[in-house]
Amino acid sequence: MTVSLAEYIERNAAVYPSHVAVICEGRETDWARMLVRCRAIAGGLNHLGLVKGDRIAFLGLNSDWFFECYYAPSFAGIELVALNYRLSAREMVECLVDSQAKVLLVDAHFLDLARVAVARCDAPVQLVLVGAQETGPVEIGPGEIGPGEIGPGEIGPDEIGYEALIAQGHAPSTEKGAGDDTLIIFYTGGTTGRAKGVMLSHWNIFANSMGAAPHYGYIKHERHLIIGPMFHTAAGSRIYSCALMPGEAVVQPKFTVEGFLSLTQTHRISSTQFVPAMMQAVLEHPDFTKYDLSSLRQMTWGASSTSEALLHRIVKAFPHVDLVHGYGATEAAPVITGLGPAYHRADFAERGKLGSVGYPAMHVDVRIFDEQDREVRRGEIGEIVVRGPNVMKGYLNMPDATAEALRGGWYHTGDAGYQDADGCLWISGRLKDMIISGGENIYPAEVEDVLSRHPDVAEVAVIGIPSTQWGEAVHAIVIRAEGAIPSEQDLIAFARKQLAGYKCPKTVEFRTQPFPLSGANKVLKTELRAPYWDPRRGVDP
Amino acid sequence: MTVSLAEYIERNAAVYPSHVAVICEGRETDWARMLVRCRAIAGGLNHLGLVKGDRIAFLGLNSDWFFECYYAPSFAGIELVALNYRLSAREMVECLVDSQAKVLLVDAHFLDLARVAVARCDAPVQLVLVGAQETGPVEIGPGEIGPGEIGPGEIGPDEIGYEALIAQGHAPSTEKGAGDDTLIIFYTGGTTGRAKGVMLSHWNIFANSMGAAPHYGYIKHERHLIIGPMFHTAAGSRIYSCALMPGEAVVQPKFTVEGFLSLTQTHRISSTQFVPAMMQAVLEHPDFTKYDLSSLRQMTWGASSTSEALLHRIVKAFPHVDLVHGYGATEAAPVITGLGPAYHRADFAERGKLGSVGYPAMHVDVRIFDEQDREVRRGEIGEIVVRGPNVMKGYLNMPDATAEALRGGWYHTGDAGYQDADGCLWISGRLKDMIISGGENIYPAEVEDVLSRHPDVAEVAVIGIPSTQWGEAVHAIVIRAEGAIPSEQDLIAFARKQLAGYKCPKTVEFRTQPFPLSGANKVLKTELRAPYWDPRRGVDP
Repeated sequence: MTVSLAEYIERNAAVYPSHVAVICEGRETDWARMLVRCRAIAGGLNHLGLVKGDRIAFLGLNSDWFFECYYAPSFAGIELVALNYRLSAREMVECLVDSQAKVLLVDAHFLDLARVAVARCDAPVQLVLVGAQETGPVEIGPGEIGPGEIGPGEIGPDEIGYEALIAQGHAPSTEKGAGDDTLIIFYTGGTTGRAKGVMLSHWNIFANSMGAAPHYGYIKHERHLIIGPMFHTAAGSRIYSCALMPGEAVVQPKFTVEGFLSLTQTHRISSTQFVPAMMQAVLEHPDFTKYDLSSLRQMTWGASSTSEALLHRIVKAFPHVDLVHGYGATEAAPVITGLGPAYHRADFAERGKLGSVGYPAMHVDVRIFDEQDREVRRGEIGEIVVRGPNVMKGYLNMPDATAEALRGGWYHTGDAGYQDADGCLWISGRLKDMIISGGENIYPAEVEDVLSRHPDVAEVAVIGIPSTQWGEAVHAIVIRAEGAIPSEQDLIAFARKQLAGYKCPKTVEFRTQPFPLSGANKVLKTELRAPYWDPRRGVDP
Repeated sequence: MTVSLAEYIERNAAVYPSHVAVICEGRETDWARMLVRCRAIAGGLNHLGLVKGDRIAFLGLNSDWFFECYYAPSFAGIELVALNYRLSAREMVECLVDSQAKVLLVDAHFLDLARVAVARCDAPVQLVLVGAQETGPVEIGPGEIGPGEIGPGEIGPDEIGYEALIAQGHAPSTEKGAGDDTLIIFYTGGTTGRAKGVMLSHWNIFANSMGAAPHYGYIKHERHLIIGPMFHTAAGSRIYSCALMPGEAVVQPKFTVEGFLSLTQTHRISSTQFVPAMMQAVLEHPDFTKYDLSSLRQMTWGASSTSEALLHRIVKAFPHVDLVHGYGATEAAPVITGLGPAYHRADFAERGKLGSVGYPAMHVDVRIFDEQDREVRRGEIGEIVVRGPNVMKGYLNMPDATAEALRGGWYHTGDAGYQDADGCLWISGRLKDMIISGGENIYPAEVEDVLSRHPDVAEVAVIGIPSTQWGEAVHAIVIRAEGAIPSEQDLIAFARKQLAGYKCPKTVEFRTQPFPLSGANKVLKTELRAPYWDPRRGVDP
């Protein structure tokens, strides 16, 4: 037999019908209700003409609706595209066109953006407006919308209400997705300026959820707080784990410190995940000590490196919490390695592993390769490569990029690192010059492409520089066009029109000397980055 | 990407080269050595002419060699048949012929049996004699045998030494097994008198190992003691888990109480599994309290029901050990459900789940079906059915039996049971009349078939009756042939010539009245069993 996500929802509805599946903004869905709604969503999509292998996209803040859409399409073998809401309309269109999504589900926050994007797509994209406020099942006829949903005045003639679609109660008419079928697609920034759709199968997601569970120390029926954006695989994979364990999810629409504190206290949250900047904000909140956070037993952090001082503060603030530092990649669904709780205890300095990303997860093989894809000797720095049943099927519509990324049966992460004498993995930097800022992957080529179109820019190089808040910040180094005097603000504003905010330079530096070039006439980013980075952190930077 | 067992051995050799893989009788193999030997075994099999999809069989007590043969064939996509050494020569031939095994690896204990069985096979089966005593790598030329191996005088002209095969150092020349490829075949007793080969794929084994890990509470790098016979999936699946976690295995050739106690103490064992009869013997051993068993942190028990009195004794004897009661089936690779440590604590009576087999493992869906394969209402008794990525590919060469067992996408266990209000599973008995004695599955039809061939037997019915030592004991009820007066001993001796000892009746009862029959003229076993069983235990018995 094979694996199908939908079957775990069916199992949970049968075995644990009244256990919580998801809680969001006062709405609570148990597994029995989750199954009914998932089947109706899948059946509704079939009714709209979608068949197995077709795709839908979701654009919205975190919500129980987004949560449902993680599970529902698999009941009809339909694939979900989780859209990053920080993208510009241009980038959104790129993802919709590339994925050929036939339906775009959008919540009230991004309705304008969605309408603009859909209008720019050549192929028709059906808009489904998500946003009911009710907690119980709704009785609505076909074509009507649910109470509290985006109001009747606001819904366009060709648009559909999400609750109305569900209320039709169609049964799915196409087969469930399973095995190597694609379950979800996440877009990551592209090195050539075009986003790449990472296709993850049911097997990929199953392997990650099963492998992450013992590695991260999840237990059955615990309460997970989802605070990271669900359009990323870090939070997304946790949603799938909640189906398998099963677990109970509490979803915060968008991270705020107050929300984190009060949800944790109210719902007796036991497990969550964060990036260091979020936890720093939590610790610095004046009311931090006023909340009862004693229910927390496990927290996973990742996505960027952390100062040892901050980690000391976190350990001290949560002495009874099992901390795990995870390292992953969207292409690996995402867990690759983890540094477990023992290394985060108060005596961690003695263990000497703090700052590393730990050991391979159960299901993952990790090695370090040189430029010719040969394994290096233990302790030497090279590219971190990964293989295992969690590694993606490939990039959508990009056979060449897929073959390149998966050459020799290993996923090439583009991260540089080494394994120490114990096999523990340390990240040294990145081979590719991708920037990670606030947990988002940013490819300089994409930003450079936009800035270079500004008439006052002759040449531009974009790099990441250290940021206490974001891990890295996007920094542009510009050689002005002859006679032109653009300001930093001009260029940032110009970028903002074309790019998601997080991709825009935080700072611009003007330079008169030519860029340092390699033998192949490529800009030597290493040299540009060098003045900003502490050489003790590793080779690059 | 897909999954391949061989890649986890490669991972362990690369990341944890000097960690223990297996220890047996003073021989210790680390992961670096394990990889070298596995590759040489696979390469040796290729050299003997085997290619991907071919099969080898192993016949022997538990050992590090058997352990290697769990991993090695996957390096060349070759499949392992794990033979039950309790089988008779006739049964052994049946399995060899059915599986078309091209090589039979045999240790010194079963050499005579293996030679007899191989001589009776029509197709040639290459015998490989396993049994080196050395601990380090051996330098032997082609055709020679290793020191301490089955002696030169004993090796036949067409036979090969295992260490000699390894010493040739051939590299595997066929592709690794992966994904849906069969990894291992376990034979289970057949309802029609013929053993069924359960084919488990790489995905099946992966799903079970990953799902069992959090469910059973295994942790990385712990010491597992393998005491159950490795030709069963219960111990066998643990061997695969040791590759994935990874873990360190200590192998006891055959269970003895003294061995269990001294190995646990010497090797600081942290995790093991047992059937209740084994643990009863341990607790009753006069030196039990003299051993230091404080390293034990987790024990899994299963395979037969246990008296509450015995369970109380176990809980009291191991107050700090996490006890898990597992329920499984060879066809499910094997884990289906488990009752966790919390329910086994000293206060377990209050929790009211003791005697159940607990909740579905993460990766498994479990339901109760009626005779028409419709799900019954919660609390009603029916057949326990299972689906998930752990469920077998099917029975080898038996498409009809496979289709019947997996009908509707569910594996039909033949066990009767119900789910209580919390979804917790209780076993009521068996729909099929299979007997489980000392952890072995025995199909009465097979025993009846043999006994009915005795000239003094007119009719025979075989049932399981309660046994403190074995859970159930095989009991034959015989209607003598006209004028014949066979003795109980005659019939048992007759059965012993044809059947594995554990399948032979322990007792024979003579009956003069005809057997009670159903409307379809089938013997009503339920009525025959009734006088032996406590009706409070459930419907059947």
